[in-house]
Amino acid sequence: MNAPAEVSSQWQRMSQSNALIGFIDVTLRGCAQVMFQNNPLTGLIFFIAIFWAAYGEGNPAAAYGCVLGTVVATLTGLGLPDRTSWRAGLYGYNGCLVGVALPTFLAMTPLVWGCIVLGSIVSVIATVCIADVLKTWKIAALTAPFVLTTWVILLGSYMFSGLHGTGLSTPKLPVAVSVETAETLFNASLFTALFQGISQVYLFSSVIAGVLFIIGLAVSSLWAAVFALVGSLLAMVTASILSADNSDITSGLYSFSAVLTAIALGSTFNKPSWRILAYTLVGIVFTVFVQGAMNALMLPIGIPTLTMPFVLASWLFLVPNQDVMPAHRQV
Amino acid sequence: MNAPAEVSSQWQRMSQSNALIGFIDVTLRGCAQVMFQNNPLTGLIFFIAIFWAAYGEGNPAAAYGCVLGTVVATLTGLGLPDRTSWRAGLYGYNGCLVGVALPTFLAMTPLVWGCIVLGSIVSVIATVCIADVLKTWKIAALTAPFVLTTWVILLGSYMFSGLHGTGLSTPKLPVAVSVETAETLFNASLFTALFQGISQVYLFSSVIAGVLFIIGLAVSSLWAAVFALVGSLLAMVTASILSADNSDITSGLYSFSAVLTAIALGSTFNKPSWRILAYTLVGIVFTVFVQGAMNALMLPIGIPTLTMPFVLASWLFLVPNQDVMPAHRQV
Amino acid sequence: MNAPAEVSSQWQRMSQSNALIGFIDVTLRGCAQVMFQNNPLTGLIFFIAIFWAAYGEGNPAAAYGCVLGTVVATLTGLGLPDRTSWRAGLYGYNGCLVGVALPTFLAMTPLVWGCIVLGSIVSVIATVCIADVLKTWKIAALTAPFVLTTWVILLGSYMFSGLHGTGLSTPKLPVAVSVETAETLFNASLFTALFQGISQVYLFSSVIAGVLFIIGLAVSSLWAAVFALVGSLLAMVTASILSADNSDITSGLYSFSAVLTAIALGSTFNKPSWRILAYTLVGIVFTVFVQGAMNALMLPIGIPTLTMPFVLASWLFLVPNQDVMPAHRQV
Repeated sequence: MNAPAEVSSQWQRMSQSNALIGFIDVTLRGCAQVMFQNNPLTGLIFFIAIFWAAYGEGNPAAAYGCVLGTVVATLTGLGLPDRTSWRAGLYGYNGCLVGVALPTFLAMTPLVWGCIVLGSIVSVIATVCIADVLKTWKIAALTAPFVLTTWVILLGSYMFSGLHGTGLSTPKLPVAVSVETAETLFNASLFTALFQGISQVYLFSSVIAGVLFIIGLAVSSLWAAVFALVGSLLAMVTASILSADNSDITSGLYSFSAVLTAIALGSTFNKPSWRILAYTLVGIVFTVFVQGAMNALMLPIGIPTLTMPFVLASWLFLVPNQDVMPAHRQV
Repeated sequence: MNAPAEVSSQWQRMSQSNALIGFIDVTLRGCAQVMFQNNPLTGLIFFIAIFWAAYGEGNPAAAYGCVLGTVVATLTGLGLPDRTSWRAGLYGYNGCLVGVALPTFLAMTPLVWGCIVLGSIVSVIATVCIADVLKTWKIAALTAPFVLTTWVILLGSYMFSGLHGTGLSTPKLPVAVSVETAETLFNASLFTALFQGISQVYLFSSVIAGVLFIIGLAVSSLWAAVFALVGSLLAMVTASILSADNSDITSGLYSFSAVLTAIALGSTFNKPSWRILAYTLVGIVFTVFVQGAMNALMLPIGIPTLTMPFVLASWLFLVPNQDVMPAHRQV
Repeated sequence: MNAPAEVSSQWQRMSQSNALIGFIDVTLRGCAQVMFQNNPLTGLIFFIAIFWAAYGEGNPAAAYGCVLGTVVATLTGLGLPDRTSWRAGLYGYNGCLVGVALPTFLAMTPLVWGCIVLGSIVSVIATVCIADVLKTWKIAALTAPFVLTTWVILLGSYMFSGLHGTGLSTPKLPVAVSVETAETLFNASLFTALFQGISQVYLFSSVIAGVLFIIGLAVSSLWAAVFALVGSLLAMVTASILSADNSDITSGLYSFSAVLTAIALGSTFNKPSWRILAYTLVGIVFTVFVQGAMNALMLPIGIPTLTMPFVLASWLFLVPNQDVMPAHRQV
C-alpha cells in the first residue's frame, strides 16, 4: 500500500469513528459534489482554490460564505432519513454554491449572512423536492436547487432595501451585440481563458483556482478532469465562432456551464465511449447556445444565469439517455 | 345535540334531498376551499366578507363576479366523473378567484363578464390537468389553475383593446427600491396590517373582511385560523426586517401568500406538531422572499403575482413531505 | 383498385424495397406530421406549398432550410431504436420547422445553415426528451421541441454577433394596444385571412399555400381539413371580438396556433363527436387568449411565440382527456 492510499484509508477510519471528523468529511464531499466528485480530498483542494480566488478578488466573504453554506446544508441534511446521499455530500453542494453566490452579488451585511443560512436550509428542501420530481425520469437535480434558491434571493433584493445588489447588472432590454471579430481572442492567452472558464463554476475568474480545480478533479477521476478541459476549450471555440463578446469569452462566462455539461454527460452519468464522446460534444456546443439565450433572456431582470444553462442542457441530454445510450449509468 | 349542530345536520339533509340546495351547498364549499375548508358555513361567511369588502372598495362587480365564477365552475365540474371532488367544492374555488380577480384588474364590460365565464370553465379544465400532472408526486393543484388562467387573460388585455386593464401597473424594468426603515410600520396599526394581509387572499384590503375570514376559518378549523394569523404576522415581520416597501406591507401584499402557505403546510396537509411548526415557519419566511422575487420578476410585464408565490413555495415544501415528515396527510 | 390507390400501394412497395425511396418517404411524412398526418403525399403537397410561399415572399432559403432540417432530423432519428416512430415521420417534423424558422428570422449566412443542422439534431434529442417526460401523462411532445430549440438560437442571436436577427421585433415593454374596432376586418377579405391563418403554421402569409395545405390535409384526413378551417375561422372571429390588431388578424397571426389546436383536439387525439366538438371550440377560443398573452409576454425579449400557444393550450386540454372524454385516442 503506497503512502497516499494509506492516508486515505486512515482518514476513512477516523471519519467513521469520530463524529466531528465524519462531519468534516461529508462537508468536504459536499464541496466536491459541485463537480460531481464524492471525494473529501477533492473537496479540500476545491476549498483551497476557493479561498485563494476569494482573497485574490478582494471578496473573502465568498469563501467564508461557501464554508458556512456547505456546513449549514450538511447539518440540515442530518434531518433527512437518506444517510447514503448525506454521506456522499449530496445535500451539501447546493448550499456550498449559495454561500459563494450571495456574497458575490450582494453587499455583505448581517442580513445577507442570515440569507446564506436560510438559503442553505431551503436548498436542501429544494434538493429533496427536485430529486423527488425528477426520479420519475431517472435524472438528478444537478445544481437546480442552488440556482432557484439564489435567484429568489437576488430577485428579492430589488424589492427589499435590506438587501443591496452590488454585483447585479442594471436591468435592460436586449440589444443585438456588435462585437469585434473573434480573432482578438486568440491574441489573448488561450491558457488564461481555459482555466478561468473552469474557475467560473464557482463564480471566480482565477487561473490558479482553475488549475487547482483540475487537480482536485484529477485526484478523484481523470476522465472528469479531461472532460472539464474539453468542455472549457470547446465552449471557448464555439463562442468565438459565434462572435460572442470577447471579454465574456476570456473571463470564462461562456465556459463554466459547458464545463459542467462535459463532466456530467461525458463521465458522471455515462461510461466514456466514442458514441458518448460525440453526444457530449453536441451537448457542450448546445450549452453555449443556451448560455447566450439565457444571457439575453435575463437582461430585463438583471440577475445572472448562474449554472442554469448547464442544468437545462444536461437534463435535455440526460432524459433520452435510456433510449439513446446503451451503457449509461444512472444515479 | 346543540342548536348549531342541529342546523348543520338539517342543512346536510336538505342538500342531499334537494338538487338546488345541494348545488348551493357545493358552491359555498367552493368559496371556502380557497382557504382549504370543506364547509358551507365557512363559504357563506367568506361570501359575506367578499360582498362587504367589494362594496366597501366601490367595486361590487368583484363580489358578483365571484359568485358567477364559483357557480360557472361548479356547473362545469358537473361534467366530470369525480363526484367526491365536486361535492367538496374542489372544482369551484379557482373559478371563485377568477371571478374576483378580473373585475379587480379590468374595467368591467360585457366582454369581461364573458371572460369570467370562459375563465371559470377553463379553470376547471386546468384543475383537472394540473391535478393529473401533480398526482405523480402526491401534491395538490392549489390555486395554480386560477393564477394561470387569470394571467393569460390579464396579459392578453395588452393585445386586445376590448379588454382594458385599469388595475394593472405600467410595465417597467426593476429598480432597487430605496424605502425608509421598517420602524414606520410599527407606528401604523399592527392590527390593521394583520387582517388586511388575510383579506388580500381575496384581493381586498379590508380589516373587517379579514376578521370575517378568520371567523369563517375558525368555524371549520381552529388550527387553520391560528396558522392564518401566524402566517400574516410572521410575513409582516419578515418583510419589515428585509425593509420592503411600507405601504405594501401595511396593505397586506407580503402576507396573503404567506397566509395560504401557513394554512397549507401547518394544518391542511400535515398534522400540527413541533417539527411541522418549524417547517411551516421556514416555509412562511421563504414565501415572503418568493413574493419579493416574483414582484420584481413581473414588473416588466405589468401583471400581479396573484397567489403564485404561495403555490410555488408550498409545492417546494410539500413534495419532500414524504421524506421529511413522518405524520403527513396527503390529499 | 382505382388509379390513386394503385400509385399509393406501388409507392409503399418501392419505399420498402429501396432504402433511398424509403428515406424520402419518411422525410415527406416528417413534413406532413407538422399537421399530424402520417402520409407521404400530404408531405409532398406541403413541400410544394412551402416552396411556392418561400419563393413568393422572396425568401427561398426558408424552403431549402425546411428540406435540410427535415432531412437532418430524419437522419438523426436513424440513431434511435424506435423504428415505428421513425417511419411515421415523428422525428422529422420539428427539424422541418426549425429549417423554416431560422431563415425567416435570421439573415442567412453559412453559420445559420450550420445552426439549422445543429438545431435539427438537437430537435430530435428534445423530441425524445419531451416525449419521455410527457408519456407519464400520455400526451405527445407536439411542436415543443421545435419551439424550444428555435427560441434558444433566436435569443442567442442577441448575444452572438455571428447571428443577425433581421426578422425579430425590437424588444420593448408591453403597452396596451389602442386599435380601431373590428369592423375593418370584415371589409378585408375573409377568404384571404382564413387561408393565411393556415399557411402561418409554416410562418408564411400566402393564400395559395394555405389552400395547398388544406388539400394536403384532405387527402389524408377530411376531418383534419375541416377542423383546420374551423380553427382558423373561429380564431379570427374571437380575435375580432376582442379587438386585436387588425393587420395581425388578417395576416393570420391569431389563427395558426388555433388551427393546430383544432386539428389536435378535434381529430388527432379524439374521435369526432358533439362533446368533443364543444370541447375543441372552447380550446380554440382559449388558444387565442394564450396567443395574445404570449405576444405580450415576449415583447421584452423580442422573439416570436412560434407555435407555443398551441402547445400549451393543447397540453392543457389533452391531459384531462382521460377523465373528461370517454372515447379519446391516445398516442
